[in-house]
Amino acid sequence: MKYRFSARMGSFSSSAVRDILKLTQGNSIVSFAGGLPAEEHFPVKAISEAFQGVMEQGKKALQYGLTEGFLPLREALCKRMAAKGMNVTPDNMLIATGSQQVIDLLTRVIIDPGDVILVERPTYLSALQVFQSYGAVLVSVNGDSDGIDLDDLKAKLAQYKPKMLYVIPTFSNPTGKVWSEERRRGTLELCRNTDTLILEDDPYGELKFGDASKSYPSLFSLDQHPEGSCVVYTSTFSKTVAPGLRTGWALGDSEVIRQLARTKQAADLQSSSLDQQTLHYLLEHFDLDGHISRIRTEYESRMRVMADLLKQHDWRGAKWEEPKGGMFFWVELPEEVNTAELLKTAVELGVAFVPGFTFFADNPQMNAMRLNFSYNDAAVTATGMERLNKALSGVLV
Amino acid sequence: MKYRFSARMGSFSSSAVRDILKLTQGNSIVSFAGGLPAEEHFPVKAISEAFQGVMEQGKKALQYGLTEGFLPLREALCKRMAAKGMNVTPDNMLIATGSQQVIDLLTRVIIDPGDVILVERPTYLSALQVFQSYGAVLVSVNGDSDGIDLDDLKAKLAQYKPKMLYVIPTFSNPTGKVWSEERRRGTLELCRNTDTLILEDDPYGELKFGDASKSYPSLFSLDQHPEGSCVVYTSTFSKTVAPGLRTGWALGDSEVIRQLARTKQAADLQSSSLDQQTLHYLLEHFDLDGHISRIRTEYESRMRVMADLLKQHDWRGAKWEEPKGGMFFWVELPEEVNTAELLKTAVELGVAFVPGFTFFADNPQMNAMRLNFSYNDAAVTATGMERLNKALSGVLV
Repeated sequence: MKYRFSARMGSFSSSAVRDILKLTQGNSIVSFAGGLPAEEHFPVKAISEAFQGVMEQGKKALQYGLTEGFLPLREALCKRMAAKGMNVTPDNMLIATGSQQVIDLLTRVIIDPGDVILVERPTYLSALQVFQSYGAVLVSVNGDSDGIDLDDLKAKLAQYKPKMLYVIPTFSNPTGKVWSEERRRGTLELCRNTDTLILEDDPYGELKFGDASKSYPSLFSLDQHPEGSCVVYTSTFSKTVAPGLRTGWALGDSEVIRQLARTKQAADLQSSSLDQQTLHYLLEHFDLDGHISRIRTEYESRMRVMADLLKQHDWRGAKWEEPKGGMFFWVELPEEVNTAELLKTAVELGVAFVPGFTFFADNPQMNAMRLNFSYNDAAVTATGMERLNKALSGVLV
Repeated sequence: MKYRFSARMGSFSSSAVRDILKLTQGNSIVSFAGGLPAEEHFPVKAISEAFQGVMEQGKKALQYGLTEGFLPLREALCKRMAAKGMNVTPDNMLIATGSQQVIDLLTRVIIDPGDVILVERPTYLSALQVFQSYGAVLVSVNGDSDGIDLDDLKAKLAQYKPKMLYVIPTFSNPTGKVWSEERRRGTLELCRNTDTLILEDDPYGELKFGDASKSYPSLFSLDQHPEGSCVVYTSTFSKTVAPGLRTGWALGDSEVIRQLARTKQAADLQSSSLDQQTLHYLLEHFDLDGHISRIRTEYESRMRVMADLLKQHDWRGAKWEEPKGGMFFWVELPEEVNTAELLKTAVELGVAFVPGFTFFADNPQMNAMRLNFSYNDAAVTATGMERLNKALSGVLV
């Protein structure tokens, strides 16, 4: 049998990086590569109790449910969203199998082959893969520590007439940066004037460090009205409760949500009823904000451990900023360092990271790396950073 | 904001039938429309115990997992598949969010716009929608009560050079029919000779009635070797355990499975870890075959209730066969009856079904209807059939 695959499978280039990182699974390599939350802080007891509560309510929890998502969960999430200035009804919301699925479904709903999507440079690797698999043309927009460059955005909106702009304004993956409010408002205005849909990806917004009262308004909240909004917002329980429950959500105009639901019905009918009902019970009976506050404190302390080690090792020519939230450090090394090459040495020495070039849609930067600080505890992080230092000592002579 | 949707969204025609059926939710209408299992027979206690068992094993159950699926679940499923003559390793298997997702992912992996997919007439509605959304050209192949018509299949393979053939050989949705072994072997031979991939959809295979020792070998098992097979097989726990756990699987050549996994990674990273681990625990600690045997008995008795009522009402010119398994009756009415029109009257009278025309890729038959017998108990079924009789009395004068 000769298998004949679709043309789009060619867009999933075999990833040398993924192959190397696969080697790191299940052995003694310290991994700063993944974007994994800290398992020891999962609310296991609360999830157990929620599940039992759901099962006591009856067999309906195991039946097929609505494609749009379990209505009481959507209602409870509306309340949480309202507290963040996003005034939505359940008709503005779709529950999905993680926010990754929202990225996939929205791309299907909006993009025809050849359509342009603007993205930040750098940005989330797996979003780039989704966009490419639907034949989108990707163009990256410059940015600085305050967020996307509005002049470059304006020029590229005019030049490429994109259908969509994909952004992570709060605690970016991979850089950990936060956009200023001016950049947020400027982006909204430019996109609204050109009928460009914004996909705002916000997996990390709840994981903020420092002053708890400081808030970074989402683009969706600044757009004020969900109906007619030029923003589709997505977030997830993967970083605040647990990724294994695979539950994220999209917010947007009800017309866009209806199209997402049609697409989702074809894709998988619906996400797990049991996970959705368990999360609904959790929202009603568990102090999720208290829990989030505890993991914020823990992640901030893990971030600080890695920051101290970065200072201590003081690699020649390395540049990095302390993230204000999220899960990642973005470290730029001197231009002559190729981090894809460095990864091979690092894995031999027992430590892994993601080379920066994978996060670029075009003109990749070869001398950067993304380091996750949320997954490992202080002792493991110290061991890993020691090994990384050894790997770097060979190239930073 | 003016939303610009992709061309593929035009393939999701607004469904008048779906709009009518939405009216039936949450009120006193008796629905023979859905394909829902009987809730009162869900193994609630066993699922509860399995969940507790999983949570006791630790926090890993809540972490991100492999895109291909939880390895111990795949290993346990390999044993179940081997008992049905399908000798696979975990590399031949992908876990998905229901078999609906397998249909979606395989279509992405195989189909470019304009490629031809052959389908049975009639066939599963939601598969047709997936295929159309990827721009496939659908051509239907004739069949009779022994399965697909091999002459017509041969002619259409030659004429259309399809990339894929989609079939439900055992207890078809919507007709409830079973293919003979001769048709199964004939189809395999024709497809192998033309490098046509077969997607074998088997959601109902375990729900067989009558002689328990009688077995209907899957096309995949008749193809003998998973490596190089021209069949991708998919099944699900939705009908045997519960749909709310949203867990199905694909079997196929490891090269095809690798491509499915790449596509799934972009689509949603992975299916629910918790659901997969709960099902694994269930397979290890619960007598699933004993449970399936009990629901077989129950569904057969529900089927017989509906068969008796069909005989009793004896609609003029109606033709139907008693299904050998599955969840559906397919009733053909006299040619002058339009079941799409009939549905409006039926819903007014308090009963719903799915009009047959929705199950055809081309040249729809307008005088048939699909009746589900698994969801309602005997009393509700009697009430619904009484109402349906009343609706029909207006057209069968």
